[in-house]
Amino acid sequence: MSHENYSSVIQTLNDCITACNHCYDACLKEEHVNMMVKCIRLDRECADICSFLAQAIGRGTPFISELAEVCVKICESCGNECKKHDHEHCQKCAEACLRCAEECRKLVA
Amino acid sequence: MSHENYSSVIQTLNDCITACNHCYDACLKEEHVNMMVKCIRLDRECADICSFLAQAIGRGTPFISELAEVCVKICESCGNECKKHDHEHCQKCAEACLRCAEECRKLVA
Amino acid sequence: MSHENYSSVIQTLNDCITACNHCYDACLKEEHVNMMVKCIRLDRECADICSFLAQAIGRGTPFISELAEVCVKICESCGNECKKHDHEHCQKCAEACLRCAEECRKLVA
Amino acid sequence: MSHENYSSVIQTLNDCITACNHCYDACLKEEHVNMMVKCIRLDRECADICSFLAQAIGRGTPFISELAEVCVKICESCGNECKKHDHEHCQKCAEACLRCAEECRKLVA
Repeated sequence: MSHENYSSVIQTLNDCITACNHCYDACLKEEHVNMMVKCIRLDRECADICSFLAQAIGRGTPFISELAEVCVKICESCGNECKKHDHEHCQKCAEACLRCAEECRKLVA
Repeated sequence: MSHENYSSVIQTLNDCITACNHCYDACLKEEHVNMMVKCIRLDRECADICSFLAQAIGRGTPFISELAEVCVKICESCGNECKKHDHEHCQKCAEACLRCAEECRKLVA
Repeated sequence: MSHENYSSVIQTLNDCITACNHCYDACLKEEHVNMMVKCIRLDRECADICSFLAQAIGRGTPFISELAEVCVKICESCGNECKKHDHEHCQKCAEACLRCAEECRKLVA
Repeated sequence: MSHENYSSVIQTLNDCITACNHCYDACLKEEHVNMMVKCIRLDRECADICSFLAQAIGRGTPFISELAEVCVKICESCGNECKKHDHEHCQKCAEACLRCAEECRKLVA
């Protein structure tokens, strides 16, 4: 895939990063933070791996397939956890994560 | 500034990351790599600080002003270096970096 | 300063990263997570900037002084917040952060 | 494994990061940079994934095995490339990478 062809997946990764970081921030502001602990943890994991993968793709890493595989797994875990919570930030985050997992799966060789 | 108001600067940061990483990759493919050493170094510095700042803004960091200040400086250095080279990837990168520096300057208190 | 001379500050940064990440993890396991929100946030900020600075120093960044200056500020904020909590992980983290702030201050031009 | 038990692998990861970043910096200073392009690329990949894994372990990530598996692969690639070059920084880096690959392999479930 060329530089241009990757711009769509990088966009999806960036959307996921933003959703995860916003959800992380919002979870820490919730009244019942203790209910959001798993979400907070996974939001960070997910934002960080997506950020890593976006940069790696951008610099032409030879390890796209391996990194995308881990990213799929983390996005799915985060998306599945967020889906359980009714907060709007969690629902939006779940959506972004699961779409990202789907896009990244295409990069796995 | 609210979450929504930051989406424009995050977009600008993401564009800068992509341009820097693409320039980094392309510089390493140039015939005269030795002419591109400063560019390669600054592309990495710039992509990394922009990625850091984008994530930090997204998670509601209390250090936006301080981080943005460093980011302005690095974006300017990278943009000014890239501007000296005629390669299309360098010219595009210079543009993205200088636009990003301008946007980030607005975040400095 | 040469490569070797930086090894001590990189060690201090690495100790701070470990202490912050451990404190982050432990705070999220505390019964009263809602009391630890500020600590959780600052632990992440601090671990991330220390990790950034350690890598930047290692690769010979031209922006040591600017990055160290931000790092000092974030380490101090995290250290001062952690100091308020009696948990052993917070006290140890406070110590690591404040020592790291002190070391990084020497890098500010 | 407990927090304490991970301190040895985190130390190995940190040593690898330092070696890779130093090698990256030194490669960019070599007279024949064009001979070092693959090394420069892999040094960055390797430093970045090791830094990611060190932080992830420290914060109690649930994805140690998956991340360690990618890390093993990248460390081996970087170590094998560096081994081909006679420069002292490459030889030292190769050693650090291959030792790190070995340590990380123990984390793969």
